[in-house]
Amino acid sequence: MATNKPKWIRKDLLGLGDLSREEIELILDTAYSFKEISTRQIKKVPALRGKMVVNLFYEPSTRTRVSFEVAAKRLSADVINVAVETSSVKKGETLADTGRNIQALKADIIVVRHNCSGAALMLARHLDISVVNAGDGWHEHPTQALLDIFTLKEKMGKISGLNVVIVGDIAHSRVARSNIWGLTKLGANVVVCAPPVLIPAAIEQMGVRISHNIEEALENADAVNVLRMQFERDELGAFPKQMEYFRNFGITKERLGKAKRDIIVMHPGPLNRGIEMSSEVADGANSVILEQVTNGIAVRMAVLFLVAQGREKSR
Amino acid sequence: MATNKPKWIRKDLLGLGDLSREEIELILDTAYSFKEISTRQIKKVPALRGKMVVNLFYEPSTRTRVSFEVAAKRLSADVINVAVETSSVKKGETLADTGRNIQALKADIIVVRHNCSGAALMLARHLDISVVNAGDGWHEHPTQALLDIFTLKEKMGKISGLNVVIVGDIAHSRVARSNIWGLTKLGANVVVCAPPVLIPAAIEQMGVRISHNIEEALENADAVNVLRMQFERDELGAFPKQMEYFRNFGITKERLGKAKRDIIVMHPGPLNRGIEMSSEVADGANSVILEQVTNGIAVRMAVLFLVAQGREKSR
Amino acid sequence: MATNKPKWIRKDLLGLGDLSREEIELILDTAYSFKEISTRQIKKVPALRGKMVVNLFYEPSTRTRVSFEVAAKRLSADVINVAVETSSVKKGETLADTGRNIQALKADIIVVRHNCSGAALMLARHLDISVVNAGDGWHEHPTQALLDIFTLKEKMGKISGLNVVIVGDIAHSRVARSNIWGLTKLGANVVVCAPPVLIPAAIEQMGVRISHNIEEALENADAVNVLRMQFERDELGAFPKQMEYFRNFGITKERLGKAKRDIIVMHPGPLNRGIEMSSEVADGANSVILEQVTNGIAVRMAVLFLVAQGREKSR
Repeated sequence: MATNKPKWIRKDLLGLGDLSREEIELILDTAYSFKEISTRQIKKVPALRGKMVVNLFYEPSTRTRVSFEVAAKRLSADVINVAVETSSVKKGETLADTGRNIQALKADIIVVRHNCSGAALMLARHLDISVVNAGDGWHEHPTQALLDIFTLKEKMGKISGLNVVIVGDIAHSRVARSNIWGLTKLGANVVVCAPPVLIPAAIEQMGVRISHNIEEALENADAVNVLRMQFERDELGAFPKQMEYFRNFGITKERLGKAKRDIIVMHPGPLNRGIEMSSEVADGANSVILEQVTNGIAVRMAVLFLVAQGREKSR
Repeated sequence: MATNKPKWIRKDLLGLGDLSREEIELILDTAYSFKEISTRQIKKVPALRGKMVVNLFYEPSTRTRVSFEVAAKRLSADVINVAVETSSVKKGETLADTGRNIQALKADIIVVRHNCSGAALMLARHLDISVVNAGDGWHEHPTQALLDIFTLKEKMGKISGLNVVIVGDIAHSRVARSNIWGLTKLGANVVVCAPPVLIPAAIEQMGVRISHNIEEALENADAVNVLRMQFERDELGAFPKQMEYFRNFGITKERLGKAKRDIIVMHPGPLNRGIEMSSEVADGANSVILEQVTNGIAVRMAVLFLVAQGREKSR
Repeated sequence: MATNKPKWIRKDLLGLGDLSREEIELILDTAYSFKEISTRQIKKVPALRGKMVVNLFYEPSTRTRVSFEVAAKRLSADVINVAVETSSVKKGETLADTGRNIQALKADIIVVRHNCSGAALMLARHLDISVVNAGDGWHEHPTQALLDIFTLKEKMGKISGLNVVIVGDIAHSRVARSNIWGLTKLGANVVVCAPPVLIPAAIEQMGVRISHNIEEALENADAVNVLRMQFERDELGAFPKQMEYFRNFGITKERLGKAKRDIIVMHPGPLNRGIEMSSEVADGANSVILEQVTNGIAVRMAVLFLVAQGREKSR
């Protein structure tokens, strides 16, 4: 598998900001070779048999947890789920101590979701076992970006030179940050589109262009990645109202009508129909939302497989 | 296994109201052949190896979830548990979208428990993968009825011609409805027995007789299926008081003394001792309550196995 | 494995108070032979393949649940997790009925954590299948004590004649009680050290010495087992303040400086750094806290394996 490519040597996957273009491509190529497994009658390979993956989730996220759990099981790994609600974090144990304990159980990989930026990095530094970042604060969500990029590449045949719009709450989105890192490293042109309040300061330094006008942003776009608006987290009331947001930034059939005919519409889910995009668009011919979910398994299988290999090499 | 029987061609199991007598008998026969597996030293067969079953539970139900999980694991399937508390439903995703996402993970079977009648049907219509109804609102709970009927048939050798009393909150019971469909299709005579407030309108049209007197109802009964009184759900205060209910409808040794000597006492659990029946009865010689639990594994193994086969054929 | 030793004949592990010295040593020897499995590339043996372990937890305890789950999976057992939050206990089912239901599912072993002393014993008496006590009220937590003793023996080569101090809330600690039973049966000299309010009446009758002075207690100690102070459970406000506790009983580098140079420091976790001991001590050369976690897997594998064997013999 990918024998002429540079080999993977990292024990962890913390973010796309750390990776070279070659490393990102290696993950994508490995995912490509794994995708077929999920279409078999017996959807399992023994690649990680006798290994243990711990899903350590400090934020609830059924989607991501399930996706990693399915990926691990397709590789024949054992999976242990640890959710914050019932865990000893209530009792005041530090994240590093929790990580050391999981390492002492001779687990092989920790998949960690945490509300603090840098949590995965901190764990990785304290541990010899592999750490995969499943989302840390507003920092990165690398496997989501990898599955977005995988899907885009599968559809378009390449990433380099593509015009990709990311629309929504850029300021609080780890998905946006990871996508920007990955896409720009692979040579895409990225536009972030949102009302000014949802654009973080100095985002241009990541190599993107800013737009506040969705029609203008979509004009030459090959793909639009529509972020979830987390209205339930808007405790400060800083967000635009839902209907106002839809009116100004929602992806509709009319707006797509003015864009390239084969523009690709992505969404990391879960989808707020009628807020981020219309149902017509979500279920339409340009939408690849469910293919993203399918590709998420292949990408996460690749990541689990590679970090397990990387750890062997780093010993 | 059941080679001369009509073959199963459905991808889903939504309710006994949909099934023919032959289909119900095919499930029972298949369950019969699976029952022995749970008595082996190594309680596993590879029938569903490499398949994935997702338990999607919008209501908490340890009993039913665990029974399906055990059944799936005895068939060597991988199992993913998704509970509403930690799931993205809080975030406003529709049931259909959640189902489509699970399908996109290349899961094979969704076992769904939902508080809305018709939820399983709705999912099944939107999806190509199999859906098994593990209880939807007040509508149906087909695997519970199938295990009740399996247990009854195992004890009595037949269902046709038996007199079966269902006692308790008929109005809000999916267990009652599924039992009535199944028992009447197999030729049993069904009496529902409860205070008038707990008898739904027009229930006679399902082919049952109504009684408000438990002694009278038990007189010629071959079996009594005692429903759980869900006092914890009685927000309107419409139910009789617990002691009043026991006095008027509770199954006691005295009441059984006036019935047939070998009358079978069933209960879907969890049991409120001293409310629905006395402990003497629950633990007595007529009770088959724990055999029902054991048979639940065999019945659910059969259902998972058949819908997986049915899906193959429907492709 | 341990072929010249007396064979294990119990179907349950309820507490160390019940066991003979020989039985405790048999568990330790079996654990010793299992420890190596967790260091393999493929960390699994088929010893309990096709068996089912149910983790029945009425108190949240991620650490203990995960440790048993990992142990069971290393033995190739299937594991079902049942937590009180989503379980039918809310609905009023008795513990015995829940146990009988799990037995009726043809599970092989119930690992039970319960807030009532005697819960495991009660279950074991009602059931033919194996019951392992994962902590019952203030009574016993035998596998924790076994892993403490295993770790101590591994470090010191023996238990007999060792001076072991247990410091902390002795009054409300099942870990202390199980350690006292195990250590005294194997010939260690045990000192319990705490402020008077945290020493239970008549504890001397268990064969221990009482100290209220940590420096004095540590003087000749070969090991100190530092209990977790469960301040979050101190609803009566009876405990000393946290800083006062640390000042008077906390294990610090200074206090260890006056003890034997190779004194072993243990803690069952989760650790309150700066309350029960300083971080310097927790992470220092005398600490075996993480080795305890590792050994917990081996000990629990041994216990699951032995009770499964014991049940076969008791049939």
